Amino acid sequence: MSSPEEQAFRLLTEYSNGFMVSQVLFAACELGVFDLLAEAPEPLGAAAVAARLGTSSHGTELLLDTCVSLKLLQVETKTGKALYQNTELSSTYLVRASPKCQGNMLRYLARTTYLCWGHLTQAVRDGRNQYLEAFGVPSDQLFSAIYRSEDERLQFMRGLQDVWSVSGRPVLGAFDLSPFPLICDVGGDFFKDPLPEADLYILARVLHDWTDERCSRLLARIHGACKPGGGVLVIESLLAADGRGPLTAQLYSLNMLVQTEGRERTPAQYRALLAAAGFRHVQCRRTGGLYDAILATR
Amino acid sequence: MSSPEEQAFRLLTEYSNGFMVSQVLFAACELGVFDLLAEAPEPLGAAAVAARLGTSSHGTELLLDTCVSLKLLQVETKTGKALYQNTELSSTYLVRASPKCQGNMLRYLARTTYLCWGHLTQAVRDGRNQYLEAFGVPSDQLFSAIYRSEDERLQFMRGLQDVWSVSGRPVLGAFDLSPFPLICDVGGDFFKDPLPEADLYILARVLHDWTDERCSRLLARIHGACKPGGGVLVIESLLAADGRGPLTAQLYSLNMLVQTEGRERTPAQYRALLAAAGFRHVQCRRTGGLYDAILATR
Repeated sequence: MSSPEEQAFRLLTEYSNGFMVSQVLFAACELGVFDLLAEAPEPLGAAAVAARLGTSSHGTELLLDTCVSLKLLQVETKTGKALYQNTELSSTYLVRASPKCQGNMLRYLARTTYLCWGHLTQAVRDGRNQYLEAFGVPSDQLFSAIYRSEDERLQFMRGLQDVWSVSGRPVLGAFDLSPFPLICDVGGDFFKDPLPEADLYILARVLHDWTDERCSRLLARIHGACKPGGGVLVIESLLAADGRGPLTAQLYSLNMLVQTEGRERTPAQYRALLAAAGFRHVQCRRTGGLYDAILATR
Repeated sequence: MSSPEEQAFRLLTEYSNGFMVSQVLFAACELGVFDLLAEAPEPLGAAAVAARLGTSSHGTELLLDTCVSLKLLQVETKTGKALYQNTELSSTYLVRASPKCQGNMLRYLARTTYLCWGHLTQAVRDGRNQYLEAFGVPSDQLFSAIYRSEDERLQFMRGLQDVWSVSGRPVLGAFDLSPFPLICDVGGDFFKDPLPEADLYILARVLHDWTDERCSRLLARIHGACKPGGGVLVIESLLAADGRGPLTAQLYSLNMLVQTEGRERTPAQYRALLAAAGFRHVQCRRTGGLYDAILATR
């Protein structure tokens, strides 16, 4: 198959099967496949994996072999027996003991985000999130929905930590932050609680949750609290100037549509919000990773 | 970003966002984006699309721009206004009026398969389908679950027709079928109903639904009904000899785990089933497309 029409059909198939690939990754994590293989002293056969995880033999073998095709596992055949072990990818990002493990974020995606996205059609119709439809939780109090149980809250928090274990360094290294000795990572109920005094306020994946109006209110509060010469560091996935890429930022913006009241924004949109709040010098830096950095000073 | 570790993280991100890409495709189809653009006499702006579909302006613009990144739409800017139209991909496969439209299959994937796959972890644990968990429908009567409503049955049937509009020609062209003047496409309640007399019986995506034991029973019935010199043409996604690919056949085999009592099989597994039922000459042909062909004669 190689005509343009056949290539287009392959791309379509890849898109329509995308959710299956996500679930193979989620299920292998959830079942503990990568942890088991990391802790085993030598590569294991499918029967041993199934026995130790308490999973079905057919389902396990199929899952392991699919992970091999996805480069999440590698296999070698010794005296006729297939033995599985982790790849660099899974050792780095999928094993609990690794400092860059993304397991909590993947579990959050599997348990919450996957279900919300089942309502994307309706979210595009309504222009608002689908928490009520997906979980029976009203969404006007956004974080009471995300934190609908203590388990869910912890899962979400741990997921955020997973993200920073990979993306923290590039965004914090995007600017020289040495002029700002006292840094406040803004959290808590930041629309109400008094803000501590600081030279730099970090808003990491905060603004993308909220409407322009609420962002303006928050930025004005920060501007008021900010020392002269101080500033704010906004960490978000930046959309391209025309809003048409990168794909990941677009998907995250749709994710905000499905789950929050916000959106991802272009550099110009952040500049406008920051300028309206009184910030003078605004610089945007793309890191090439999932998250970018915007530094604005008073 | 270009170190092996960063490349691995990109691949992981692609996998974990796969379900979002699927849903962008599903939602754009469901909302009728591609049909609207096909029927419009000229490219349309996002506001016009939103107005005609009755969808939110922000959600619509975001969905359209994400479709552009996925090559499902193309955009041109005229006097500052972005105008969208279909690509070759969407014109061929996503517009209702196209003879190769996959819309029904995509709707079936969105409404049924996506939900079943939310239970993949449990399916691998149990080694059986998750109809009861996903839909509250007992699964021991397999097709009463798939046909749980008339709407669902029609959706599934139309989806199968969509698949054959693309994959029918390659699988039927894989062998010279001229020696078989009378061909029976096996359907209905084929474990019970008498089989009509024919030179060739076609089992298209039938065996993958069933256990080896049930496949053997069905093939034995067909062998009994088959004229001397007659045969059976099995159409399925063939797994590689070692079961480790192609990825699509592996995903479809997991799909069988999640939704049926069957699996996709290797050529050797089909040969064994066919030989046990009494068929002599078994030939497997890979088409390079999603479905392959196996011809066995009595």
